[in-house]
Amino acid sequence: MLSVSSSPRFLLAARHVCHHVRTRPHAPRPLLLSTARRSFSKAQQCRTRAMDLSEKELGNLKVNESRLMEELHSTCSFGTGQRWGEATTDTGMSRLSLTDSDKQVRDWFVETTRALGCQTTIDSMGNIFAVRPGRRDGPATFAGSHLDTQPAGGRYDGILGVLAGVEMLQVLKENEIETEFPVGVVNWTNEEGARFPISMVSSGVWAGVIPLERAHNLQEVGGGTATMKSELERISYLGTTPASHESMPMAAHFELHIEQGPILEATNQKIGVVQGVQGYRWFTVEIRGRECHSGTTDLSNRADALLTASKLILHSHRLAARHDALATTGILTLSPGSVNTVAGTVRFSLDIRSRDEARLQLLDETIRQHFEAIARGGEEADFLMNGDSDIVRGLPCEISITEDSRSHVLKFDEAAVGAVRKAAQRLDAVGGQLIDMTSGAGHDSVYASVRCPTAMIFVPSKDGVSHNPREWTSSEDCALGAQVLMGAVLEWDRSRATAADSGA
Amino acid sequence: MLSVSSSPRFLLAARHVCHHVRTRPHAPRPLLLSTARRSFSKAQQCRTRAMDLSEKELGNLKVNESRLMEELHSTCSFGTGQRWGEATTDTGMSRLSLTDSDKQVRDWFVETTRALGCQTTIDSMGNIFAVRPGRRDGPATFAGSHLDTQPAGGRYDGILGVLAGVEMLQVLKENEIETEFPVGVVNWTNEEGARFPISMVSSGVWAGVIPLERAHNLQEVGGGTATMKSELERISYLGTTPASHESMPMAAHFELHIEQGPILEATNQKIGVVQGVQGYRWFTVEIRGRECHSGTTDLSNRADALLTASKLILHSHRLAARHDALATTGILTLSPGSVNTVAGTVRFSLDIRSRDEARLQLLDETIRQHFEAIARGGEEADFLMNGDSDIVRGLPCEISITEDSRSHVLKFDEAAVGAVRKAAQRLDAVGGQLIDMTSGAGHDSVYASVRCPTAMIFVPSKDGVSHNPREWTSSEDCALGAQVLMGAVLEWDRSRATAADSGA
Repeated sequence: MLSVSSSPRFLLAARHVCHHVRTRPHAPRPLLLSTARRSFSKAQQCRTRAMDLSEKELGNLKVNESRLMEELHSTCSFGTGQRWGEATTDTGMSRLSLTDSDKQVRDWFVETTRALGCQTTIDSMGNIFAVRPGRRDGPATFAGSHLDTQPAGGRYDGILGVLAGVEMLQVLKENEIETEFPVGVVNWTNEEGARFPISMVSSGVWAGVIPLERAHNLQEVGGGTATMKSELERISYLGTTPASHESMPMAAHFELHIEQGPILEATNQKIGVVQGVQGYRWFTVEIRGRECHSGTTDLSNRADALLTASKLILHSHRLAARHDALATTGILTLSPGSVNTVAGTVRFSLDIRSRDEARLQLLDETIRQHFEAIARGGEEADFLMNGDSDIVRGLPCEISITEDSRSHVLKFDEAAVGAVRKAAQRLDAVGGQLIDMTSGAGHDSVYASVRCPTAMIFVPSKDGVSHNPREWTSSEDCALGAQVLMGAVLEWDRSRATAADSGA
Repeated sequence: MLSVSSSPRFLLAARHVCHHVRTRPHAPRPLLLSTARRSFSKAQQCRTRAMDLSEKELGNLKVNESRLMEELHSTCSFGTGQRWGEATTDTGMSRLSLTDSDKQVRDWFVETTRALGCQTTIDSMGNIFAVRPGRRDGPATFAGSHLDTQPAGGRYDGILGVLAGVEMLQVLKENEIETEFPVGVVNWTNEEGARFPISMVSSGVWAGVIPLERAHNLQEVGGGTATMKSELERISYLGTTPASHESMPMAAHFELHIEQGPILEATNQKIGVVQGVQGYRWFTVEIRGRECHSGTTDLSNRADALLTASKLILHSHRLAARHDALATTGILTLSPGSVNTVAGTVRFSLDIRSRDEARLQLLDETIRQHFEAIARGGEEADFLMNGDSDIVRGLPCEISITEDSRSHVLKFDEAAVGAVRKAAQRLDAVGGQLIDMTSGAGHDSVYASVRCPTAMIFVPSKDGVSHNPREWTSSEDCALGAQVLMGAVLEWDRSRATAADSGA
């Protein structure tokens, strides 16, 4: 087990310095809490028990917006990406999982959470769990997300969720807050699936959904030979603790994330209380036509794989619209790839999503039927394509559709969602501008939810842009999200203690 | 000048053996010609003067089908490509211009044409001109095409035209035929444009249409650093004779080529008498949308570059059909290329062709207008796309359209076309199964025609397949085409002499 423990000495030291005014910039002095120091044990007399905070006091326990944003942008020096504007922080991120820059930010995470009084555990998928002890033993209530990014990603996707967790640890420490049970922050490995091509693979292993061996053997995209395991070893993050909910159980998992879509901004809301996650299915569609010379083959004698693919991509949007779903083709390759040769083979990805499992299934079936008919051509194809019969009919193409992965529609735990809602409603800064939402993207919370109560918090994404260097969320929104995250974690900790005390 | 001359000794030797029965396989004994040896000069008394051949004798001067096909398939050992069937010759070709395999076939061409009594000249584009002397001096009448192929090409495109020229030299030699003026065979460099990205570039330099420097500096596709000049030097085919119609004038240029389309086969014709060549224009279209997450961005908030490209590709076919033209997209690349990221940028090639210059111009203008409207989106786009309004309208994309090259509609010289027709009509094996055609593809004859009377002969392509390993033409059709080619060259030589003699 590769574990970096905070030494007893450190814990002791922390207890001794708790009343000293800190000189660290942006670190506010401890809150003045009217009801503090009421019923503490002797050894912990300098601490404030979270259980004892009033609603008002909880609302006053503020995250430090400047500190959060400075820390976030400072860690973005590990794996800085494309510049898109003139301000210092107007660059994206390119921090693929298990690269040298990912190692740098991991080292930062371990050091920082240690310094904040956590014990850190690294499991066999390189997931890092930083746990801050509570008054009682038991699994921690986690805030978490991921520090890896897309190759041309932004500064918020995943990163905000982890940094907000670290800010929570800062606030708890500087206010000497003692939770009933441990609380923690988790950094999941390779959430993006951008380097090793399964998204959320390491939370998937933790949940027992994805076999460890399959994950370890995942090869990096782009023709390299590195595997997850070889890269975990290389950067010294292959822990000996099994990646499993059994070895590292969680009491709950709360994830703050940018929306990555335009809805909050468009509807002038500040917080999305995420109810669950869309289901999705990913396919590879392969069209096989016939290569031929572009100048000598009339349109009716062509089996043009790219023309067929164009029809199918268009039709997938037509069907998605009809089924209140989404359809996306983000990858397309063809051969042989010559200006004057009709494409013989085209392969493209298809990603379909819906909030409703039955609708997703129906869309899946309809796409398969219609795609085959359109590839075959003829009258049925014209009918499906809305009678667009002034495109010359060509020869039939062959088609194969392979499902590469799927994720079911997910509903989050009602109590966990309730904790998020309560934490958001409590805040004047939210001012009731919160809505229930469904996450369109997959997140580590999907797999976490298999094994523990889970919920998510969304904050607005400017123009809905994400997976792009220009991804942007205002400092106020980041801090507000972090505030709700901390509130939800504390809410969960308090409810859990209350339930335990009442013998529930 | 890198020039390989047939020595006077060889010519002398050839004269001395002319009546010996040859033991070479497949080489038939000289034809018995009723009117032969009538008015030869003393030094050439063993020769038959082409001028003296009757129509019937001309018709009886037969190419050797077995020899032609054995020689063709034997040269296909230089640069053999993909296997597609079980027979020995069921493989395609992959002989990119100026590669080692191209050097091998060039060396074969030089040696073989020398042995057949030719003087070979290599110019500064590596074009190889093999000239067989006639009774009088003057520019040669050429048969010619190219020996380079597509990366996944077949055994006939270009190759047949050169090999048929070599077979013509064989027949003339074994029958001791003496032409009035020189006749020759030319192998043009990089006709395909598959390695160095301008098609017919070396005949273009010869014609004075493409500057030598531009051609020499062409860099190989696929990221390599080799240029045409560096590769010509490397394989010792950078001749010192200027690549120019002034240094190497041609009396006429006849090119036998496979049709590369399905018309001859579909209409049960044996010979296409090519009247001219379609015009074409090549464009690069770039669509700039916005990258965004596929799960979190509803369809109406997307500027999806690939969806837009799909609409444009479909629409280019719609417009081509309306204008009795052709449209093809053979290359498409996109970024960033991730299953769950909407494509931000797409670039694709567009190749449009027509037999009519005015129609081509109108199609060009219409495509530019409509493409911009469709990329912009909205009602006009729906109208252009045939009211296909159940695809959710997204955000506008930007578009730019760049013309990369164009070739005008071309009409071949009437007299040269007439020589082909006469040669075809003369043959019983054609049996009147010949039609006038327009070439859909560009050929070196396009540039040759700028500087000399030019015509082409087409033979059927099985299923119209070309630029593909399965490209196939029957031995009978190859031989029949070679027969027409030789007939047209001799016809041109005779007419030319007649005209000269009559003082025309």
